[in-house]
Amino acid sequence: MGEGVRAAPRRRARELGIPLGRYRPGRFNAITDVAGVRVGHSTVIRGSGHLEPGKGPVRTGVTVILPDPENVFEERVVGGGFILNGAGEVSGITQVLEWGLIETPIFLTNTLSVGAVTDAAVRWMVERYPGIGDTHDVILPLVGECDDSWLNDVAGCHIGEAQVREALAAASTGPVPEGNVGGGTGMITCDFKSGIGTSSRRLRQEDGGYTVGVLVMSNFGQMHQLRVGGLPVGEVLRERYAGKPSRQASYGSIIAVIATDAPLTSHQLSRLAKRGALGIGRVGSTARHGSGEILLAFSTANKVPRQTRKMIYRMKVLLDARIDPLYEAVIEATEEAIVNSLCMAEDMEGVNGNFSPALPLAEVEELMARWQPARGK
Amino acid sequence: MGEGVRAAPRRRARELGIPLGRYRPGRFNAITDVAGVRVGHSTVIRGSGHLEPGKGPVRTGVTVILPDPENVFEERVVGGGFILNGAGEVSGITQVLEWGLIETPIFLTNTLSVGAVTDAAVRWMVERYPGIGDTHDVILPLVGECDDSWLNDVAGCHIGEAQVREALAAASTGPVPEGNVGGGTGMITCDFKSGIGTSSRRLRQEDGGYTVGVLVMSNFGQMHQLRVGGLPVGEVLRERYAGKPSRQASYGSIIAVIATDAPLTSHQLSRLAKRGALGIGRVGSTARHGSGEILLAFSTANKVPRQTRKMIYRMKVLLDARIDPLYEAVIEATEEAIVNSLCMAEDMEGVNGNFSPALPLAEVEELMARWQPARGK
Amino acid sequence: MGEGVRAAPRRRARELGIPLGRYRPGRFNAITDVAGVRVGHSTVIRGSGHLEPGKGPVRTGVTVILPDPENVFEERVVGGGFILNGAGEVSGITQVLEWGLIETPIFLTNTLSVGAVTDAAVRWMVERYPGIGDTHDVILPLVGECDDSWLNDVAGCHIGEAQVREALAAASTGPVPEGNVGGGTGMITCDFKSGIGTSSRRLRQEDGGYTVGVLVMSNFGQMHQLRVGGLPVGEVLRERYAGKPSRQASYGSIIAVIATDAPLTSHQLSRLAKRGALGIGRVGSTARHGSGEILLAFSTANKVPRQTRKMIYRMKVLLDARIDPLYEAVIEATEEAIVNSLCMAEDMEGVNGNFSPALPLAEVEELMARWQPARGK
Amino acid sequence: MGEGVRAAPRRRARELGIPLGRYRPGRFNAITDVAGVRVGHSTVIRGSGHLEPGKGPVRTGVTVILPDPENVFEERVVGGGFILNGAGEVSGITQVLEWGLIETPIFLTNTLSVGAVTDAAVRWMVERYPGIGDTHDVILPLVGECDDSWLNDVAGCHIGEAQVREALAAASTGPVPEGNVGGGTGMITCDFKSGIGTSSRRLRQEDGGYTVGVLVMSNFGQMHQLRVGGLPVGEVLRERYAGKPSRQASYGSIIAVIATDAPLTSHQLSRLAKRGALGIGRVGSTARHGSGEILLAFSTANKVPRQTRKMIYRMKVLLDARIDPLYEAVIEATEEAIVNSLCMAEDMEGVNGNFSPALPLAEVEELMARWQPARGK
Repeated sequence: MGEGVRAAPRRRARELGIPLGRYRPGRFNAITDVAGVRVGHSTVIRGSGHLEPGKGPVRTGVTVILPDPENVFEERVVGGGFILNGAGEVSGITQVLEWGLIETPIFLTNTLSVGAVTDAAVRWMVERYPGIGDTHDVILPLVGECDDSWLNDVAGCHIGEAQVREALAAASTGPVPEGNVGGGTGMITCDFKSGIGTSSRRLRQEDGGYTVGVLVMSNFGQMHQLRVGGLPVGEVLRERYAGKPSRQASYGSIIAVIATDAPLTSHQLSRLAKRGALGIGRVGSTARHGSGEILLAFSTANKVPRQTRKMIYRMKVLLDARIDPLYEAVIEATEEAIVNSLCMAEDMEGVNGNFSPALPLAEVEELMARWQPARGK
Repeated sequence: MGEGVRAAPRRRARELGIPLGRYRPGRFNAITDVAGVRVGHSTVIRGSGHLEPGKGPVRTGVTVILPDPENVFEERVVGGGFILNGAGEVSGITQVLEWGLIETPIFLTNTLSVGAVTDAAVRWMVERYPGIGDTHDVILPLVGECDDSWLNDVAGCHIGEAQVREALAAASTGPVPEGNVGGGTGMITCDFKSGIGTSSRRLRQEDGGYTVGVLVMSNFGQMHQLRVGGLPVGEVLRERYAGKPSRQASYGSIIAVIATDAPLTSHQLSRLAKRGALGIGRVGSTARHGSGEILLAFSTANKVPRQTRKMIYRMKVLLDARIDPLYEAVIEATEEAIVNSLCMAEDMEGVNGNFSPALPLAEVEELMARWQPARGK
Repeated sequence: MGEGVRAAPRRRARELGIPLGRYRPGRFNAITDVAGVRVGHSTVIRGSGHLEPGKGPVRTGVTVILPDPENVFEERVVGGGFILNGAGEVSGITQVLEWGLIETPIFLTNTLSVGAVTDAAVRWMVERYPGIGDTHDVILPLVGECDDSWLNDVAGCHIGEAQVREALAAASTGPVPEGNVGGGTGMITCDFKSGIGTSSRRLRQEDGGYTVGVLVMSNFGQMHQLRVGGLPVGEVLRERYAGKPSRQASYGSIIAVIATDAPLTSHQLSRLAKRGALGIGRVGSTARHGSGEILLAFSTANKVPRQTRKMIYRMKVLLDARIDPLYEAVIEATEEAIVNSLCMAEDMEGVNGNFSPALPLAEVEELMARWQPARGK
Repeated sequence: MGEGVRAAPRRRARELGIPLGRYRPGRFNAITDVAGVRVGHSTVIRGSGHLEPGKGPVRTGVTVILPDPENVFEERVVGGGFILNGAGEVSGITQVLEWGLIETPIFLTNTLSVGAVTDAAVRWMVERYPGIGDTHDVILPLVGECDDSWLNDVAGCHIGEAQVREALAAASTGPVPEGNVGGGTGMITCDFKSGIGTSSRRLRQEDGGYTVGVLVMSNFGQMHQLRVGGLPVGEVLRERYAGKPSRQASYGSIIAVIATDAPLTSHQLSRLAKRGALGIGRVGSTARHGSGEILLAFSTANKVPRQTRKMIYRMKVLLDARIDPLYEAVIEATEEAIVNSLCMAEDMEGVNGNFSPALPLAEVEELMARWQPARGK
């Protein structure tokens, strides 16, 4: 794993002087700044050397986002989503787009583990809510994926019930581990090691004072496409990395999960998710043919109970005429979450000695500093 | 299981004098009339009496449709789809809608087994195509579901690798078992027992001579909504069944798979799938809020190789100005496939003694006969 | 115009014993049963004989639906829509689907008059709301079209400001003229003369007591496809009309406008509109390649003011778990509105002597009577 | 009009040292680099001072893009589109998305002139193709709009048949006038005067050697959002313009038209259009609630004849596995087209003395130069 190179600790984007927009982050600059949202990871790193399917090396994991401190099954949160490029999967998204509700945790893992994670999620939910399939409806867990096969023995199917339960048990509020953790363990962005990243924004009181947070499992792009804070950093760096092997055929994806406490309808959340896609574009995504770029969004401010005798409810709705600050904030937070996934991920060597270098922070910092004066002027 | 009632053998819709459109069916009046398409079932019926989650009673299964006699992984068929109501799941459909390709078999099962079937399908494909996740891309199997919980211990998760492999091994061309088989084992339509049904149409030579076949796993609606050949049969029958218990909260779904040898693009196939939805509507579906009504379509006439050095290929495309007969044929075949699923399913008793009666064929036949003269005139 | 044939007065579908579902219509069995909704027509019938583009014969018009007794510009109603087949146009629908609001009247006319009607609508609105384009936003009027060229000199562009203002001035609550009026003047359905039709349903109090009304400009299909009350009436009648000339190349469209006082969100209204499409399918539509089948829906229960200082409003929302009766009602009302457009339209001769016969009511009534006993039994 | 300030001639983005991607532009760096594509403008600038609706001041026009040197009505080009935010209108887009064909010229104008331009386009086409509405189908012209009301008497409806015919007559291949011309005359982007802009990219032979061109009518955003070549130029400049009045409530839109000679299907063109939206995002668009951001795309390589006796045709299709360079090229060209619309537009004073400043090129050039060394290193 590129010994020595890791000497310098990783730092989040914001500490490097990268221009990341006009709105302020929340306390943890994480999706968990939206009250009640919890995140947990289970990370599997095992073995090295030649790929032996079923044995390893293993560089993968599962991340879970729990939208609500309460019982998301009983008190569903309003949800939406957007598919920038559908060469990927968030199993269960069809129902989110139809019903505008999220009623399970959201899991992120590798492509070939979607089934295993879905199965484990079903078993966990059946155990926790015994009426499922009897007195209650059945459920369709939300499971998103990216392809980590350049570093991970993906065909070995190393994620199962143990990892899903570990991630659920680990779920907590507060700071969120980023980089080579959970579902992001084996992910790569623009030829640099990335993984999980998160960020948030808090609007001013006159804009409603809402918080919006984003968590990404980022795995897209090629080096020349990378823009950091708008600046074409990838173009500058790629000379230095020229000739180094990098993945080609499997060019990745990104799953983004957006949380907010703004009172939005499902339709508004889908529109918000679409703006998140513009944030992905700002970092350099061209939504390549083979890249599954999918966004989910939910609001903790509006909940729909599973069981009620009511006919009508009164839903708080943010007027669309007031929604633009939230759109801008989600673009900023998505951009920063991706950059954080790069800044916090360390070098990784995976199957067959494939090596994914960490983004060189010192060099990025220097580039920012050189550009900074111009901007400040 | 309503002993005695089953004395009379089940018959397909066409034998009952039901008016089912103007186009002729293919040889087997089945999706397998499209050359190369194979279907296999694995059926699990076990136990009776009180529901003990994890033990039973079990009334479920898995059905597989293989689009191609060759290697659908290497030679992908062009595909599309339509979501009439998205309260359900066909895992993998996002990629079909984006890429317009189908590259795995299509599986149908119960809602809570989507994960297990996906996982088993991944393992089967990895075994069969060893480069997946290494020299090849990863794959996302297509797995559709309906909720069979009124008859089946769905939370018991009784479908796994054994059933998936059994269905794959059983896949064959020729006549397709219908009714209480495979994924349709525990399904109910308009308060009558249904399950798997299939039908096909062959166009006249001047319309291209193409074949279109449909296979459904049908599980929607309430009795009063049932229309057979357009006639409001459900309204007539429901007096007879008044007071009998029937499922309420879980009101089902339908997954339809459409195959054709007409040379269609993905966009045309998605439009064809939309017409299939009109066929579902003709049987009485109102696409209830809780009903996942999802259609997939593929053409065996256009294949896209996984690996090629070409830049351009020449694709045969049916001119849109010639597509209307195919639209009408798919509506007819979808309607007939659903009616077949009803006509071929036998009575079933499932969990907690829940009883789903078969459609009373003699009475349906009599109603058709009485109406028939009027039509003949 | 088929002299003599018109001796018998036209009657609405409900008077002919056609089975039209289980829910009750409102007072007028019209879209105007939704309180506040007004409809107005301007009809242009002029000349006969050979087509001289620019001169005639003219068989066309414009119909306007005003969603609200108040000022729909200031107090926008919540709206949605669905495109069953997009071979047509409702100018302005893009904004309805994005914003979920309707802020202009809805106009229906012939295909080549969409521009002229849009222009006239803009001028009328600018006159009425002087701040448009200055202190107010600009607006995009909603204008839907079908192709009446088999009977009408469509290229002659005979609709302009006079007709638009006449329709607006004529707009009223209460019974709605049907058949050969307004935008429907030259329209044909399944080879019988049709035009404007309307119907409504009122839900029971335990289902909320809501009203849903539908108005169609109906212009689709071929005779053999016509189903009346589910019964394949077109198949029976077509022998009688065999050999008579009918339009071929230009196979029409349908625009449906759905109004309700149920408190629905835009997303719910779009789903409601999708169910309306199932109602169109029940009458025999196969959504032919060339048929523009487009539905708009709005709710008068939720309004969004153009100007407000608020950030949040509290929106009444019908719980989705309670929405199925409304879905079923809209399918019924759409089916009946189309059948009404057929039952109320009289024979018409248009350009080049093209003759479109009225649906033969006596024969339909007889067919219904013969089938009726079977159903009653 | 900001006397003196205009002394320096306007220059295109590429002359200012702005980093605009890796692919090369075509000969004219314009949509007309796609062989056969023609562009024409009609510009109306008249009056000054106070707004008198119906009189002026007038700052508007119409731009037309002709996809084909031949007869786009008889030989339709394959088309697609994408709606980033639907708060706007491209009348006729519904049919493009359904049929995947473009069969009329594409017009761009102000919001309230969509009807008048549609009407004029219909009259022009009827005159040119006399069978429309008789031996031929009817047509639905493509007319896109943005709101120019901050500078223009939009409610005065100053565009009509004369302007439409002038633009059509002016249509030519070769260099395309940019800035304050045609439909772009009164448009503003990020608080600087913009209007029409265009750009193109030519792929390397090993990527197929295709050309893709983009033309925009650009009218979105606020100053702080403006990114030029990725760099946050708007943030730097806005101090200088602080306190100057700018439009608020009406925050604009953008219509982009993408042309290519790559042999794409409609589905591929819609995906290409989606990538164009990422290019819009790169310049700073947040797809504000009130901003209609709509893209059309067409391929001149695949044509579908209006009349044919064939059943099947053989369509050349670029393999999706080869499409990524085209995606990246369209993002670059869209970004550059927007920046060109800013660089080429001059200061403009419109209604009520509203003043829209041109982008200060010298300052932009200086900012680029200061950043450039860092990038060069």
